[in-house]
Amino acid sequence: MENLKLKAFIPLFYLVWSDDLLSQKEFLTLQKFIVSQSWLSKEEQESLLSKIAVSSPPSREVVANWKSEIEIILQKNPLTRSLFDISILLSENDRTISDLKPAFVKLENDLGISGEEAMADFETIANTFTSNYQTSNRFEIEKLTQILDGKQAEIIKKVKSVISRPEFAYETPTDTAVYREKVYEWCKILADENLGNMGYPKQYGGGGNIQDYFAIMETLSYHDLSLVIKFGVQFGLWGMSIQSLGTEKHYSKYLKDIGSLQLPGCFAMTETNHGSNVKGMETTATYNHKNQTFTIHTPHEKAQKEYIGNAAVHGQMATVFAKLIIGETDYGVNAFIVPLRDTNSTILKGITIGDCGLKMGLNGVDNGTIRFDNVVIPKENMLDRFASINEKGEFESPIPSDNRRFFTMLGTLVGGRIGIPRSALAAAKSGLTIAIRYSNKRRQFGPEGGSEVPILNYRIHQRRLLPLLAKTYAIHFALQYVTNRFVTKSESEMQEIEALAAGMKAYSTWSTTAILQECREACGGKAYLSENRIDALKNDTEIYTTFEGDNTVLMQLVAKNRLSEFRKSFGKMDAMGMINYVYENAKTAISEKNPIVTRKTDDSHLIDEEFHLQAFQYREKTTLASAAKRIKKLIDSGLDPYDAFNIVQHQMIDVAQAYLERVVLEQFQEAIQVIEDKNCKEVMLKLYQLYALSQIEKNKGWYLEDGYMEAVKTKAIRKMVNQLCWEIRPDAVSLVNAFDIPDSCLAAPIAF
Amino acid sequence: MENLKLKAFIPLFYLVWSDDLLSQKEFLTLQKFIVSQSWLSKEEQESLLSKIAVSSPPSREVVANWKSEIEIILQKNPLTRSLFDISILLSENDRTISDLKPAFVKLENDLGISGEEAMADFETIANTFTSNYQTSNRFEIEKLTQILDGKQAEIIKKVKSVISRPEFAYETPTDTAVYREKVYEWCKILADENLGNMGYPKQYGGGGNIQDYFAIMETLSYHDLSLVIKFGVQFGLWGMSIQSLGTEKHYSKYLKDIGSLQLPGCFAMTETNHGSNVKGMETTATYNHKNQTFTIHTPHEKAQKEYIGNAAVHGQMATVFAKLIIGETDYGVNAFIVPLRDTNSTILKGITIGDCGLKMGLNGVDNGTIRFDNVVIPKENMLDRFASINEKGEFESPIPSDNRRFFTMLGTLVGGRIGIPRSALAAAKSGLTIAIRYSNKRRQFGPEGGSEVPILNYRIHQRRLLPLLAKTYAIHFALQYVTNRFVTKSESEMQEIEALAAGMKAYSTWSTTAILQECREACGGKAYLSENRIDALKNDTEIYTTFEGDNTVLMQLVAKNRLSEFRKSFGKMDAMGMINYVYENAKTAISEKNPIVTRKTDDSHLIDEEFHLQAFQYREKTTLASAAKRIKKLIDSGLDPYDAFNIVQHQMIDVAQAYLERVVLEQFQEAIQVIEDKNCKEVMLKLYQLYALSQIEKNKGWYLEDGYMEAVKTKAIRKMVNQLCWEIRPDAVSLVNAFDIPDSCLAAPIAF
Repeated sequence: MENLKLKAFIPLFYLVWSDDLLSQKEFLTLQKFIVSQSWLSKEEQESLLSKIAVSSPPSREVVANWKSEIEIILQKNPLTRSLFDISILLSENDRTISDLKPAFVKLENDLGISGEEAMADFETIANTFTSNYQTSNRFEIEKLTQILDGKQAEIIKKVKSVISRPEFAYETPTDTAVYREKVYEWCKILADENLGNMGYPKQYGGGGNIQDYFAIMETLSYHDLSLVIKFGVQFGLWGMSIQSLGTEKHYSKYLKDIGSLQLPGCFAMTETNHGSNVKGMETTATYNHKNQTFTIHTPHEKAQKEYIGNAAVHGQMATVFAKLIIGETDYGVNAFIVPLRDTNSTILKGITIGDCGLKMGLNGVDNGTIRFDNVVIPKENMLDRFASINEKGEFESPIPSDNRRFFTMLGTLVGGRIGIPRSALAAAKSGLTIAIRYSNKRRQFGPEGGSEVPILNYRIHQRRLLPLLAKTYAIHFALQYVTNRFVTKSESEMQEIEALAAGMKAYSTWSTTAILQECREACGGKAYLSENRIDALKNDTEIYTTFEGDNTVLMQLVAKNRLSEFRKSFGKMDAMGMINYVYENAKTAISEKNPIVTRKTDDSHLIDEEFHLQAFQYREKTTLASAAKRIKKLIDSGLDPYDAFNIVQHQMIDVAQAYLERVVLEQFQEAIQVIEDKNCKEVMLKLYQLYALSQIEKNKGWYLEDGYMEAVKTKAIRKMVNQLCWEIRPDAVSLVNAFDIPDSCLAAPIAF
Repeated sequence: MENLKLKAFIPLFYLVWSDDLLSQKEFLTLQKFIVSQSWLSKEEQESLLSKIAVSSPPSREVVANWKSEIEIILQKNPLTRSLFDISILLSENDRTISDLKPAFVKLENDLGISGEEAMADFETIANTFTSNYQTSNRFEIEKLTQILDGKQAEIIKKVKSVISRPEFAYETPTDTAVYREKVYEWCKILADENLGNMGYPKQYGGGGNIQDYFAIMETLSYHDLSLVIKFGVQFGLWGMSIQSLGTEKHYSKYLKDIGSLQLPGCFAMTETNHGSNVKGMETTATYNHKNQTFTIHTPHEKAQKEYIGNAAVHGQMATVFAKLIIGETDYGVNAFIVPLRDTNSTILKGITIGDCGLKMGLNGVDNGTIRFDNVVIPKENMLDRFASINEKGEFESPIPSDNRRFFTMLGTLVGGRIGIPRSALAAAKSGLTIAIRYSNKRRQFGPEGGSEVPILNYRIHQRRLLPLLAKTYAIHFALQYVTNRFVTKSESEMQEIEALAAGMKAYSTWSTTAILQECREACGGKAYLSENRIDALKNDTEIYTTFEGDNTVLMQLVAKNRLSEFRKSFGKMDAMGMINYVYENAKTAISEKNPIVTRKTDDSHLIDEEFHLQAFQYREKTTLASAAKRIKKLIDSGLDPYDAFNIVQHQMIDVAQAYLERVVLEQFQEAIQVIEDKNCKEVMLKLYQLYALSQIEKNKGWYLEDGYMEAVKTKAIRKMVNQLCWEIRPDAVSLVNAFDIPDSCLAAPIAF
């Protein structure tokens, strides 16, 4: 089109033939328009009509030339803002054309062409703020690592140096037998480094440091997770069961060899038919006074011990839980040391071992089943700290109730419910490090004409990963707190700490499952390749949500504990009084609500720690009161308490969740208060705010239903969550780097 | 205690020493009480005090005897309702005792003992309704299966009979090479049965039945999922790319051999650097007019084809997507047939194949990378339905825009986005069948003194599984609908159907991921064992959420399509007008809200289909309007549209979600309307109600924020969801049995 006037049609023609599919009717509109323009000669009209004949579209070159003509105009005139302005410039400011503005604009409307969108199509060098955003260094990573590691920095450093050695290099574990041996060898190296016996008393060759033991568990979890579970079975479950349930004679006989892995062993509690309801187990230990022995027996197939780590290959002994029978009387569950294999790994008479075979993950751990066919063990093999048989052959215990005794025994084993959530935490840190580093580097899509943009610059990607990063930091501090409480516990705190550990086990492991799921999806196909390890992290930790206590069952226990905590604090009340108290208490909280606060949306209020704590506490109190009230009502109406508790199970999960969220929030707040470094404190504060507000956002249905917040406020919170994600994004890579996971452990090619 | 009066203390003593841990202070309270009772002699007091000395607890037998004395009383007097009543009966109605009621009740309160809870402890034969609930047969399973299978019943039956043959027995696939060969052999059997070529035209040896082809994909997914993906790569991606993008000369040359698996091939689109943004791919096809050839070339390592199924081992040819270069000009992405291996499986010159190695799942599929080093192919290998090179060596296409041409080509391949969600659906059905059957059988915990209860009787377990079962049925009908729309599509519907398929692909695959996660956790440790197959179902389908289009990216596309659907319907409007229209439209909807409806909570209203549809439609319209408004505002404020769309990404997901939920709801409603069998209709109606209300419950935060519902209503909905779960529970096993998955496919021991 050398005719300048005709060039005014180029923008429309280009749009007609490029992306957008115009209908026949709209082609007709355009044709009619051309024919109706009296300033065009017949020849000019025909020339124009030939360019928009549906039967013979212009060649691709013609369309490309139109586009480049437009682009040249736009480069020379960067302030051009409308299609018609382009037309004027293409016609070199022809007067006829400039007078046609109303007609052309009407035509654009008739064709359904949006000027704004069309202009965006023409932008050649897009310089959007989304594309320009990037990682920056706003705090010293090492300082944050120090804050995370705290007093355990030294042992963490040691463990990292051990697992970074060449002999700890990952191998592709397709052959289970090879994998199991590799993991066993790794455990031996750790034992040689005196890492396994860290929690045992010094007089039995141990390190006498439980805090360090948990830090070891957590740090090992940056490496292969089969290793950490095998380690935990041997030194935690097996060794600690001796230490917690046995007495001096057992300590001196076994602990040293367990700590050095001379004596590999198992913790045989779960049975096929009794997992969560382990109190119902059916294995028996029948006392024979004459021979001073016990006979351990599996009455039927479904009473076999199942999923027992170390059983299928390496275990030489096991702590076996069984119902003690004396004469005709069942004295409830007690624990016994039962040999399984001799030192040549030959399985002993009466013992039948099964192999659990291939599992979803943790295939480096030799889980197995164990059946006992009247296996006789000496009397001294009873772990007799909480119950024993006297010289007359009579049962003795300071805790007469079988039930209470069993739960007291279990209570001493609560360490597993600290080790597992801390291991889960480390796995979440690995997943987030891989996913966030990859998202910072992986580019996909971009503005028209601009280069592709790191996917972490996309708001939805930030939304997917950054609240989870905040939650991971939050859980880090909460688990430090649980560990401290556990290590310094007094007798009277035990029930509370048991519930807290059970709850945090559920909270942390569920969080890890959700985080690794998001990391997998956020990294697309790359995360499906085993080389990038999200595969193993996900599958290995998958069982965390149901072993060491099924999370859903644990949450019910936590909620029941919360109900009874009230009763303890107000010992003088009966159930009715207690429930009334809880309810009255919550009513007070309700009266705290006032329309100014329920609608308050200024930024300084939304990020205020006091506001967060009150909101979390309010939810905690109110869910508890409401569950209490409901149970009371149901029982009053004549329901069996068992049926009543069944009906409120769903609410009980809320009760437990609200309690745990409050604890986690509080610990995050307290952890930040003691940070001295200004820059670290600043970024941690933002991360804390993101945790607090994204939890409230998650629970917004509850807050709105309750009336504690109004819509204007929950909407403002959603915006603030988006804003915090955006503000934290430049620090995201530094924040995962502060986890300081050894490169050889991380290993995923996409993370480097 | 032979002294009858003293027996009145037995209930208290028993409670003091059994489960509940009384504090020192409370022991003191009890001691003081005894000392203060003047009707007791000094000796009697001392005898009583000796039973509650903290330093010397009673033996376990003594406590057990107390319990059995109490139990005998309760068996004889089943109406006993309080602790003190037991005391009276134990004292054989001693007058002194019966006069002491106020004192004893006060003591109970002082000790913080709850009479109700204590009484529950004593119940020996609990007969709760939770324990008595069970599976029943309220409809004919075969009839429901017929409804599900519809017109594809015959082909479904055929596929099931083939995959139930002994040669399809699962093998433990630890050796990838063996596994890949096994899957390839299975595909050959399916090809021999004329199942692979079902979708191809009859004149090229095919079955000419796309509906049946999709039913085959879905039914095969009850078996090993590597098989279905390998099958889909060969007959779907590879074969259909020839059929959709090629012309007659390609059909006659290739389709028959592809359908018989004589010619295994690949679909080589994705590159390492370009997955979601596949338009940016960098592989080139340079045309040489002199030789009438193309040269296919990979310019750098990250431009290699990646994750390509059939590439690592079996593929002899591939449909390769590459940018066509003629002279200096880039004509955008086009498709070419490129040979990879000769018939002896020797890799051809210029081709470099990599192996993707071990993956999270689908290890029976040989995914690989492909690099081309100046590979020359004849001109006729260009798939030239949408673009070709004429005799003069010039590019020709009816679609001048490279962009539009590429998306038109992709549009013809939308079948993959129907096959994958249907495969995902089948995997969800398998998972639910295993988990629900197991939950109906697995017993754990129970009322005091009663036997253990099937875990599916627990409300929380119902809550976890049954809404997912309802959702699976809902998705079944929605995917039937999408398939029908696809098969009968007209040109003008294509964009809508592409968006619908993309959206349902995301909806169904995300649902499956969530369902299998829940099934895994709901079955505890058993689901961690590979023998129970949830392992494989989970890991094999894990990639479904990100392949065939990343779900998050697809949801953005769906939302954008929803915005432009409006523009199309009201073609005369510009963007501003369109957004105003959407907004006005929603305002009308808002004015529909009235306080009677927002608070209406009667049962008949809550289960009313009209109420559901209106609520879903309202959400669909409002989220769309709100996103449109926000984008408009952002652009008006001077933001680049790219930045503006980035800011609303989170809302765009809502827009797509609300649209899909409405479609799924509508299809579920319509499917039920045509059910004739009364019993089937009844149970499906309940299931439908559960789907509708559990979706509203999931979105309750949104409805409350919007004001469309008030708290009293969302609370009533939660209750109704619980109630529906309870009511559906007896049908749950029949409902999964109606999926009619062959036993040999299900295979999991816990499901039988």
